[in-house]
Amino acid sequence: MLAHRLIERKRDGGRIEPGEWRALALAYAKGHVPDYQMAALLMACYLRGLDRAETAALTEAMLASGERFDLSHLGRPRVDKHSTGGVGDKVSLVLAPLVASLGVAVPMMSGRSLGHTGGTLDKLESIPGFRTDLSLEEARRQLDDIGCVLMGQTPEIAPADRKMYALRDATATIESLPLMAASIMSKKLAEDLTGLVLDVKRGSGAFLPDLDRVLSLAEVMIKLAADHGCACVALVTAMDRPLGRACGNALEVEEAVAALKGEGPPDLMSVTYALGAEMLVLAKVADDTDAARRELEKAIGTGRAAETFQRIIESQGGNPGVVDDPSVLPQAAECELFTAPRRGFVARVDPKAIGRAIVAMGGGRTRVDDVVDPAVGFVVTARPGDWVEAGEPLATIFSRDRAGISIGRHGLRAALVIADEAEPPLPLVSHRVTANGPEPYPTE
Amino acid sequence: MLAHRLIERKRDGGRIEPGEWRALALAYAKGHVPDYQMAALLMACYLRGLDRAETAALTEAMLASGERFDLSHLGRPRVDKHSTGGVGDKVSLVLAPLVASLGVAVPMMSGRSLGHTGGTLDKLESIPGFRTDLSLEEARRQLDDIGCVLMGQTPEIAPADRKMYALRDATATIESLPLMAASIMSKKLAEDLTGLVLDVKRGSGAFLPDLDRVLSLAEVMIKLAADHGCACVALVTAMDRPLGRACGNALEVEEAVAALKGEGPPDLMSVTYALGAEMLVLAKVADDTDAARRELEKAIGTGRAAETFQRIIESQGGNPGVVDDPSVLPQAAECELFTAPRRGFVARVDPKAIGRAIVAMGGGRTRVDDVVDPAVGFVVTARPGDWVEAGEPLATIFSRDRAGISIGRHGLRAALVIADEAEPPLPLVSHRVTANGPEPYPTE
Repeated sequence: MLAHRLIERKRDGGRIEPGEWRALALAYAKGHVPDYQMAALLMACYLRGLDRAETAALTEAMLASGERFDLSHLGRPRVDKHSTGGVGDKVSLVLAPLVASLGVAVPMMSGRSLGHTGGTLDKLESIPGFRTDLSLEEARRQLDDIGCVLMGQTPEIAPADRKMYALRDATATIESLPLMAASIMSKKLAEDLTGLVLDVKRGSGAFLPDLDRVLSLAEVMIKLAADHGCACVALVTAMDRPLGRACGNALEVEEAVAALKGEGPPDLMSVTYALGAEMLVLAKVADDTDAARRELEKAIGTGRAAETFQRIIESQGGNPGVVDDPSVLPQAAECELFTAPRRGFVARVDPKAIGRAIVAMGGGRTRVDDVVDPAVGFVVTARPGDWVEAGEPLATIFSRDRAGISIGRHGLRAALVIADEAEPPLPLVSHRVTANGPEPYPTE
Repeated sequence: MLAHRLIERKRDGGRIEPGEWRALALAYAKGHVPDYQMAALLMACYLRGLDRAETAALTEAMLASGERFDLSHLGRPRVDKHSTGGVGDKVSLVLAPLVASLGVAVPMMSGRSLGHTGGTLDKLESIPGFRTDLSLEEARRQLDDIGCVLMGQTPEIAPADRKMYALRDATATIESLPLMAASIMSKKLAEDLTGLVLDVKRGSGAFLPDLDRVLSLAEVMIKLAADHGCACVALVTAMDRPLGRACGNALEVEEAVAALKGEGPPDLMSVTYALGAEMLVLAKVADDTDAARRELEKAIGTGRAAETFQRIIESQGGNPGVVDDPSVLPQAAECELFTAPRRGFVARVDPKAIGRAIVAMGGGRTRVDDVVDPAVGFVVTARPGDWVEAGEPLATIFSRDRAGISIGRHGLRAALVIADEAEPPLPLVSHRVTANGPEPYPTE
């Protein structure tokens, strides 16, 4: 009866009180509220909205539906990064070992691919043997030992969110600012962090394309973190094109390994350094972002970051040889160059079209239980604004069979627009948002 | 994937095309679309609305998800009545045998109690032995024989609607004009009718309280009937107070039996005659409603209508003795008079409060699988506008135990408002709606 009453109230534009959110989240986590009632409520929330107080109450309720990761014994600052999701976004794979190699604990719990966007867990699982389903106890041990875990949300952490998130994916209720904020923050606040850096994506490949809503999302999340004594900074980054060149699980691991060795594409390095610098400052292991950046570059230059990644992989059951020899990753049976159909400027590299093509080729999910083919994807070398001649290679398609190549070619034809003129792409990092509001990010 | 795309589109205020509704209804009826996706879509439909063409397409789609009741062999006009639901509304129990006794086939498929409203099937099942789960074949035989069935929607009839209706009840998406119209008409159009009379309720106890929306609902349903060659008239009747005196399953059967013997309360008889006259005119067995009314009164006066009810009960496995001796119905263990707490006018007899009290006493449902106690309920003798003295009996409470009496007393205290002044209640029948639009109903 509770659920019915709350659906009715939200349907009519009313508010749900903190105690009601708490009771609902607990009942849902325990299976006492059926998915169909929660689905109706989520759609009512999507269309009617939640105010700030309701968003905070929902976050608390989902957090309180499970356990918290108690990490106070570590005696080290604990800082994580979260991205709102995009295409080619393998930053976590580079950033977590990099920052951990500098003495900051990074207890990173990530998600799976969703819609057109990739997921850190799927990427990691393309490393042969790599386990992301660590228990909290295993995670604690590894954090003691290496200072970093790269794992999935355990069943104990925010179980209401875990169920609700899968349901939102199936019911077209993902792209809601308050639901996104509450979902992200209920998980991150369970990690017992001292600091959190948010990578909030904007542009056509992001869940919230518009800058206004992206800034609101960042502000809501920063406020939620502050309410829990967690220092939080957000950077607004571009998702009007893929980040880096590789798009697809194993291909992205390969690019992340290259980045850890200082050979990553410039845009990936820029975003990684920008986010990493904020993490080091929040962790108080660097005085300012300039000093932090020098530390990060050094950790990559000395091989310490790559070595930390190797130790994480080994500790989580994966083949650590991947860092020295990426060919141990699953390889696509077929590959083919994709060339420019005409001369002109690369006017657009559409991340959504690329992400959807990867899903269609078997490298993503349309349902939670879909099995992902780790080897498929693209390496897109063309960048928006590049001048290209007809027949010049723009990308490589990796697929398990010829049918996949044809899907990939079709996808790239839609994604890569060559034209006589090209609008400038979005700045890679455009804003820095703190509790004091947004400010423009200094250009490099 | 289809469901996800349609949820997304309706969420954003778009239209769903006829072929899409058809595919969706079939897939849902077959269990290929999960309830949680349908729940999200229903909430999006509730909040975004459906236009006339979409409402027609959804109706068609639900109708086409199952079989139709082919009754052309009967060689008689086939006319049914449908009410949008209320409290104390036992009209079907009187009207169906009454009209059938005059040579019109009445293939009436009814529903169960829903929220605060009663359901014809639950009322009938309070008659010992009465079966409402007839097969289409059994129903056909009984229509041949007696000209009337009082049964539930079979699994073959509009299965998509059957599932969707139960889901709407659980997800607070009942009170939607297009969803109501499509649900009602998909069932009624499957009955292969030559005519249909709609009893569209208005007032605080109706699902749509406001006259404007009630008239729109009537017009949409009349148009849907016309599209299928089914002549349709709607009467707008009052549900700002219960209809008749008895509220509760067995109590209403008792009152319906009295009505069939000419001893029903005046308001119940008025509504029954008004609807019955329209049915006879649509069936072309009377030239006008005045002539029709005389026929109806005669059928009651001669005992023919009561006899037809007796034959229906016998044919459907029930104890036909109920018509001669209603004490064969389940009896409440406890009963208590409820008296006026002060002198004054009866300003309000709130049907919703009464309906909810019956549910709380065990006589209705909060879930589809709740077991209904047929004996509990009220007989409310006070009518809005009556002058009463303090201590004068207003109602009788029927319950299975003392706790139920206390719930009932509490409910009546909320439902029966005594005040120094009383607004006049809504006219019992206020409008007659045809394909030409609404007109005021002549006062008697």
